[in-house]
Amino acid sequence: METDDLLATALKSSLRVLPGPVTLVTTRDPETGGSAGMAASAVIPVSMAPPSMLISVNRNGQTHQVIADAGRFCINLVSTDQMSLVSLFSDSSLRKQRFETDAWQDHESIPYLREACANIFCEIEKSLIYGTHELFIGRVTSVRTDEGAETMAWVQGGFARVTSMEH
Amino acid sequence: METDDLLATALKSSLRVLPGPVTLVTTRDPETGGSAGMAASAVIPVSMAPPSMLISVNRNGQTHQVIADAGRFCINLVSTDQMSLVSLFSDSSLRKQRFETDAWQDHESIPYLREACANIFCEIEKSLIYGTHELFIGRVTSVRTDEGAETMAWVQGGFARVTSMEH
Repeated sequence: METDDLLATALKSSLRVLPGPVTLVTTRDPETGGSAGMAASAVIPVSMAPPSMLISVNRNGQTHQVIADAGRFCINLVSTDQMSLVSLFSDSSLRKQRFETDAWQDHESIPYLREACANIFCEIEKSLIYGTHELFIGRVTSVRTDEGAETMAWVQGGFARVTSMEH
Repeated sequence: METDDLLATALKSSLRVLPGPVTLVTTRDPETGGSAGMAASAVIPVSMAPPSMLISVNRNGQTHQVIADAGRFCINLVSTDQMSLVSLFSDSSLRKQRFETDAWQDHESIPYLREACANIFCEIEKSLIYGTHELFIGRVTSVRTDEGAETMAWVQGGFARVTSMEH
């Protein structure tokens, strides 16, 4: 078996070609009432019975503790029209500007991104720490989908358009 | 809160626009020595320390028990040239044909897909059952990446080409 450092480098190359969704995971700090969020592509469905989603969150990130404290989060699937918003969440110096636009609204007491492709509200039911990350399984409490918004993928370290292929 | 049936229907609509990778997860039955595999798009990285991946597997599927018994699996990220192979794994009547082509080779005693975009070999370290599914966290033991192969996404219930966007 190779060393973890070599494996991590090799794995990073593979992950560049593993497409994921472009999402902003948002929540509200139960103590301060402040909005918090992070960009995430490690987001998958778990089950339809019960309806549930999983997110993987870096335990060193500022949003990790807020999500854990809040016990709930919203997965906002960003549309191609909303790309510029994602950069606010990738740069910690822009933290204060993140929720300043009227793109955000409240539902179930947490901020969600209006006009996103989808908003999936979850209540944390299970969690599991592994290495640097914590996995949160959220039971879905409500869902909004905007069929008119264009979805995109995260691949090669950037945004990508997705186009259905005939086969 | 809405009923689980209504939520599952609403969640399914959202998931159609949530892009995921196109992978075949493969393993070998430790009892029979037979190759086994399934198509999967619920595949995400967990951590770089240690290097690790997570897959979500339906406990009712035939491959679930084989993966659990084997304690290891390979995530094969399918290229656009290999689409036709995926249909063999989506139709149980085609089970016998799945590993008949010379597209497959062995490494670490499990079958992997040659000329795929990536092959990520994992050893199961943790697992968690939730609803109909079991989540397997695999510690990465080796990785192959083919920079020349074209990756694709699973979206709207089908294959999609991914094209980088300038922003």
